[in-house]
Amino acid sequence: MTATPFHVYDTTLRDGAQQEGMNLSVADKLAIAPLLDELGVGFIEGGWPGAVPKDTEFFRRAAKELSLRNAVLAAFGATRKAGTRAWDDPQVRALLDSEAPVVTLVAKSDVRHVERALRTTPDEGLAMISDTVAFLVGEGRRVVVDAEHFFDGYRFDPAYSRAAAEAAFTAGAEVVVLCDTNGGMLPHWVTDVVTEVRGALGVPHGRDAAAGDHLLGVHAHNDSGCAVGNTLAAVASGAWHVQGTVNGYGERTGNVDLVTVVANLELKHGLRTLAGEGLAEATRIAHAVAEITNISPYARQPYVGASAFAHKAGLHASAIKVDPDLYQHIDPTAVGNDMRMLVSDMAGRASIELKGRELGYDLSGQGELLTRVMTRVKDAEAQGYTFDAADASFELLLREELTGTRQTYFRVESWRTIVETTAGTAGHDAASRDADAVAEATVKLHAGGERVVATGEGNGPVNALDQALRSALTRVYPQMEKFELIDFKVRILDAQQGTDATTRVLVETTDGQHSWSTVGVGPNVIEAAWESLIDAYVYGLVHAGVEPR
Amino acid sequence: MTATPFHVYDTTLRDGAQQEGMNLSVADKLAIAPLLDELGVGFIEGGWPGAVPKDTEFFRRAAKELSLRNAVLAAFGATRKAGTRAWDDPQVRALLDSEAPVVTLVAKSDVRHVERALRTTPDEGLAMISDTVAFLVGEGRRVVVDAEHFFDGYRFDPAYSRAAAEAAFTAGAEVVVLCDTNGGMLPHWVTDVVTEVRGALGVPHGRDAAAGDHLLGVHAHNDSGCAVGNTLAAVASGAWHVQGTVNGYGERTGNVDLVTVVANLELKHGLRTLAGEGLAEATRIAHAVAEITNISPYARQPYVGASAFAHKAGLHASAIKVDPDLYQHIDPTAVGNDMRMLVSDMAGRASIELKGRELGYDLSGQGELLTRVMTRVKDAEAQGYTFDAADASFELLLREELTGTRQTYFRVESWRTIVETTAGTAGHDAASRDADAVAEATVKLHAGGERVVATGEGNGPVNALDQALRSALTRVYPQMEKFELIDFKVRILDAQQGTDATTRVLVETTDGQHSWSTVGVGPNVIEAAWESLIDAYVYGLVHAGVEPR
Repeated sequence: MTATPFHVYDTTLRDGAQQEGMNLSVADKLAIAPLLDELGVGFIEGGWPGAVPKDTEFFRRAAKELSLRNAVLAAFGATRKAGTRAWDDPQVRALLDSEAPVVTLVAKSDVRHVERALRTTPDEGLAMISDTVAFLVGEGRRVVVDAEHFFDGYRFDPAYSRAAAEAAFTAGAEVVVLCDTNGGMLPHWVTDVVTEVRGALGVPHGRDAAAGDHLLGVHAHNDSGCAVGNTLAAVASGAWHVQGTVNGYGERTGNVDLVTVVANLELKHGLRTLAGEGLAEATRIAHAVAEITNISPYARQPYVGASAFAHKAGLHASAIKVDPDLYQHIDPTAVGNDMRMLVSDMAGRASIELKGRELGYDLSGQGELLTRVMTRVKDAEAQGYTFDAADASFELLLREELTGTRQTYFRVESWRTIVETTAGTAGHDAASRDADAVAEATVKLHAGGERVVATGEGNGPVNALDQALRSALTRVYPQMEKFELIDFKVRILDAQQGTDATTRVLVETTDGQHSWSTVGVGPNVIEAAWESLIDAYVYGLVHAGVEPR
Repeated sequence: MTATPFHVYDTTLRDGAQQEGMNLSVADKLAIAPLLDELGVGFIEGGWPGAVPKDTEFFRRAAKELSLRNAVLAAFGATRKAGTRAWDDPQVRALLDSEAPVVTLVAKSDVRHVERALRTTPDEGLAMISDTVAFLVGEGRRVVVDAEHFFDGYRFDPAYSRAAAEAAFTAGAEVVVLCDTNGGMLPHWVTDVVTEVRGALGVPHGRDAAAGDHLLGVHAHNDSGCAVGNTLAAVASGAWHVQGTVNGYGERTGNVDLVTVVANLELKHGLRTLAGEGLAEATRIAHAVAEITNISPYARQPYVGASAFAHKAGLHASAIKVDPDLYQHIDPTAVGNDMRMLVSDMAGRASIELKGRELGYDLSGQGELLTRVMTRVKDAEAQGYTFDAADASFELLLREELTGTRQTYFRVESWRTIVETTAGTAGHDAASRDADAVAEATVKLHAGGERVVATGEGNGPVNALDQALRSALTRVYPQMEKFELIDFKVRILDAQQGTDATTRVLVETTDGQHSWSTVGVGPNVIEAAWESLIDAYVYGLVHAGVEPR
């Protein structure tokens, strides 16, 4: 008897793509699928061939272009229309034509949806499931049935929902997936429903299932904030097939985050769920998928978020140094993430020492230096600086204290920026909603033994200053051509003082391979931006190993 | 016998502020506290007086400036140091000096932390709890004990963790909060631990507790993605005190999102947890807090997220229109959110009609007008405007559509602003940290039948523009002298485009009696600020009943 492997079923490319603002091209999907395969999922649901032309194209190209090591492709579709035959339904035929080895059928299992949305009888609803499953199984496909609105339906009319699941199994479905389509379930309700249904249908607990046995699965959304808890509750109750998406993408509040679920099952329950060692690459994979979807990663995401293992409190830092295990629920390297120390005004010397180590500076035993750095950090934070989001500015400060000096790549003599509307364009509307302002900046500085005066234009004053600064410096430091500003954040502090407030600007810069963050503060957004730009360029030059000229 | 009310304990201002990148000023905290009170939480943990100077200041000002209807303030602090006496410990005295009626003490309840982090004996660890609690209770404070690392500690050495909780109760603590400090718990573990500890200590299930009975509480972090599930599991097991933060702010993956927990308990379990009807305002309150923290709201946030009830048009559109309950886990108005459907503009028109009524305009039956306003709002929001936080700009737009014209108090011909460093001041330091920039602005406009050219100076470009505009207009409209800018917020949209990003500015203005908010958007922070300034002055003049001259 061979045990059934646990099914990790990814629907990023289909249900995940329902997320507001997400629009995946065929090329995007072809780029994401190998990442999912690398993670080690067993199934990749690619889309709905026949219904969505892009998805038809995806399956056509996937058959030729993808070579998956761990996963098989699944085509998603619906049961036949009411009052037709499965083999006559073009939507069902398109599922066959996709050549995906697995077909996942969405089936109504809430009798209210059968009557009010499908507008057919409960019996025809069941026949639609049986016929379509039997037809596809007869054509040699493995069939998964997504029992839509199962939990809500079961709580309203358990007999019908059970009958829908039974119809699917009887017709040859391998898995019936209990879907919390509206996402409103709570874990103890999931436990109750999965346990009852498994008993009623005689489906074995997944850990006891042999190859060929029926399996229950779970498909959770996060509307109650319980997608992970609900999924774990279903698995504990014997559901051995878990659907979800990378980064929890999906409609409304999203689908369950598959990486979080898998990490909990593997690292906390010791359950083998993925093929290979992909979990140790999960952070990189999740971020790579985010690059393709172009949705900013969520820093607070469990396991793989940028902040997931970031520690700020000074209270804990000295103990973390000794015993990191006491302050982390898992070893972050198990998911390819890292512990990070955040330097803030709550930081003590211990967290500065740890931060230094993270940045590659051994500060152990340098008590006096640590005190100096800590004092500077606290003074700066009292003025409005924040270093926990500006590692590069912190490193410049640390290097300055370590070496007693700051690398002087250039000396600024003065700068100026002008923003103005062209006379006339602002005139026709008091609100000047259509005014077009232009910005210009001039920078005077000394670099490479010369005095340089350069001017830049931009659509805003900071952009213009950036252009002027580059134009002044790239002849002396050609490495700067690679530097690019990729993010720019403004925060007004002491906001109760109107336009007199202090401004903090955070800038993120890249050289195409790495990125770094710097901070500037001033009574004036332009001055704060200027300061963070200067730090960004100095840091970039230091790290490129450039000597001041 | 009076039943114990359920404790909703908010720690946004203390544990939430540990979030990476968050840095709350005293003014921020004083602005957030009334929002928490409006939500109806029972406790607001304001910070750690004595340890953090800002927090000492918060409690000093809160005592004078805040009038809370539902919540009491809690001061957070630690048990006395090892080998001292509670009344001699300045950190403990500072908790008394804060005058907060509730003191929440963090106490070590994991014996490994006692030995390795506190570096003292298990017995002294318990004495630190007993002494400090007894001292504060003797001084008339209600005492809550946050049993740090309780779950991990209990799973390692249950006897010690139980003894820590017992020491707290015996010394007079009202609540012992079992903290999942590292956030690694899963719901079924939480159920087991809470049930066992409650039994061992003889603490009643919260629903059966009488006034004066001991209570257990829960404090969850989201490192396993189960903060909500863990909190609900603890409540189901009898923990009647829940700690969390608005928007789930907090260190690493954040604390549990208090609004999600409360909405689940109130709407799904029928448990009364909040004072008043604040849950119906939860969406507005959560977003208002996000405006103050300046952390972009997360669209996929359960209950209150912008996408939480957004349905993509498709398969079920007509069914959703007929039967929304079949497609939503709750009625979104229960948390002050809205269903959004791309195929239907009905929700949009209804909310504009409601908003109009709120502002004093009866728009009922004016379908065509509502459609025009809705279209303009949607177009504007697509460009980055947001009217949620800018009622005055919305009202100007609405009046324009109602009257067919916009009040023209003045016509702007052009404006210009210059920010520059004086040559020499920027020169002595490459980072120009000590540079002093000055800003100047010139405005040319027509008002009262004349062309006026005026110049203003300020410490920033927006301040200078504001001065120039006032100087140009106050002779014609003396009412403007009373207007004062009191808040100014900048948010960068499309942040992946560096300094090319679109900028949104929100301005709040007062005439000494009322205040109003306006919005401006542009590729350029100055232009966006200018637009919001103009709206602010026009709105102020309209509402002062001033006729254009």
